[in-house]
Amino acid sequence: MLEIIAVDWGTSSLRAGLLDAAGAVVEQRRSDRGAAALFGGDFAGPLVERLGDWLSRYPDLPIYASGMVGARGGWAEVPYAACPAGIAELTAGLVRVPFGADREVALLPGIKYVGEGTADVMRGEETQILGLPSRSDPGLVVLPGTHSKWVRVEAGRILSFTTFLTGDLFAALRSATVLKATTATEPQQDTAFDRGLEAGLADARLLSRLFSLRARPLLGLMPESETSSFLSGLLIGCEIREAREIFAPSGPVVLVGEGALAGAYQRGLIQAGIEIEPAPRHAAFIGALAVHRRLTGGGAVAGAQAES
Amino acid sequence: MLEIIAVDWGTSSLRAGLLDAAGAVVEQRRSDRGAAALFGGDFAGPLVERLGDWLSRYPDLPIYASGMVGARGGWAEVPYAACPAGIAELTAGLVRVPFGADREVALLPGIKYVGEGTADVMRGEETQILGLPSRSDPGLVVLPGTHSKWVRVEAGRILSFTTFLTGDLFAALRSATVLKATTATEPQQDTAFDRGLEAGLADARLLSRLFSLRARPLLGLMPESETSSFLSGLLIGCEIREAREIFAPSGPVVLVGEGALAGAYQRGLIQAGIEIEPAPRHAAFIGALAVHRRLTGGGAVAGAQAES
Repeated sequence: MLEIIAVDWGTSSLRAGLLDAAGAVVEQRRSDRGAAALFGGDFAGPLVERLGDWLSRYPDLPIYASGMVGARGGWAEVPYAACPAGIAELTAGLVRVPFGADREVALLPGIKYVGEGTADVMRGEETQILGLPSRSDPGLVVLPGTHSKWVRVEAGRILSFTTFLTGDLFAALRSATVLKATTATEPQQDTAFDRGLEAGLADARLLSRLFSLRARPLLGLMPESETSSFLSGLLIGCEIREAREIFAPSGPVVLVGEGALAGAYQRGLIQAGIEIEPAPRHAAFIGALAVHRRLTGGGAVAGAQAES
Repeated sequence: MLEIIAVDWGTSSLRAGLLDAAGAVVEQRRSDRGAAALFGGDFAGPLVERLGDWLSRYPDLPIYASGMVGARGGWAEVPYAACPAGIAELTAGLVRVPFGADREVALLPGIKYVGEGTADVMRGEETQILGLPSRSDPGLVVLPGTHSKWVRVEAGRILSFTTFLTGDLFAALRSATVLKATTATEPQQDTAFDRGLEAGLADARLLSRLFSLRARPLLGLMPESETSSFLSGLLIGCEIREAREIFAPSGPVVLVGEGALAGAYQRGLIQAGIEIEPAPRHAAFIGALAVHRRLTGGGAVAGAQAES
């Protein structure tokens, strides 16, 4: 039996899932109508456009949405819940917006962390993290991405986290600096990536190492085709070095994500001597289901554990 | 009596000076026709366009040009001279290109440095550095800019140097990443700049600190108007921290340049406890004059010393 429609509505895309009582994703949808392009405008329309058939087929299914859809300028602004934050805090922070004639969408809050000399925010990732199996708790979760996040979890709550500009910076260096000339090719050379990793893990000389990616090809000391792989490794290596300083991981970290980017982080974590535990798939939607269960007095979500 | 026409022809602009026998710049010109936009095309035309009256008024004055005009794709490719490199090496590396009916332009080589695990290049800055007064020798010279450089000088030669992507990275972060939203205003807040400096000098957590410039304004913990000043301080602080690790300066450093950027570096060096010695103005052209003197068997250039 179906239980909720869960929507992960981020900056640049929307993912939606039909979840059954066991936490399984029965059907999944994607759309490129990200929240950022809709800021200040209509959110109901694009949702109907993509999920119209689900909405009419399942008129009573509750709808939960997380991510930038709840940011300032979004469908409604949902204030951040403060760390430590778990399913209880996400549930308490829900903001309901009317949708169509007689429905509503429950928007989940993001989470903020303010520590000594540091401040951070997330919107969307929290529903992935809080849906992870309990054997990752207490633990450290790594979510690679444009703004990758390292998150400390304990007793079902997010204690603290740090966001790294890694992916965003990688793209900006390749599109808007002198490195543009040499780093245009897609990263794919493992040995160059590994050398970059080694440099990034070794020391904190990022600003000087970046320019050497211009100088080396000019002097014939590195093929141009290797510079983007080296750069990718260098930045991921720097991130892991910084994160290790901040979080001092003692056990394995949970790596969330699939594909080439997760593969690159896996390579980096291994080279740094950090043990990895892969996350279950569809973790994103499990957090929304847990919020729903808490609201309706239902039991814990078994899905993630069953899948792991 | 006039002695040479010196041209500093960089990526994005051209500066030219009429130098007299005392090393004084009698007249100076600027043009926005930088070398990068001319690559693969005509360089003689733009030079005539800007300096035509000088050229006809002083038909016998030798012309020297340094900078990206001698890069691959430039007027002619001038191979880099290897460190250690001084006026003798620059003179030996000159490449002459025919110019007009019966003249020529002497293109000065850039310099390359290949050290253990590092490689670097410069084109143009060497003529500034090698024109500095002898009391800066041995010493460390700092040239702020899009790609700022720290240069170790001894016995009139450049021993080694490191380029930092600082300025280029600052512009890319403000134009092509999520920080665009908050760092658009011009840096001008000294206290925010100083806090950024302090963070950059303190530790090597650049990737995580960058995202906090997005999170803090969102959480009302930093006014948006302060983020670009903080970012500027953070990057310059990181550069000084890295440079201090690489060069371990024991005495004062020579700071080349004027205006707001040099002021920012001055602030940073003072906060880092590094003593500063200002460079004389017009140092750029003095190096070209020293090359000319060496070629013609003339005496040392007294201009820089006299000016300092």
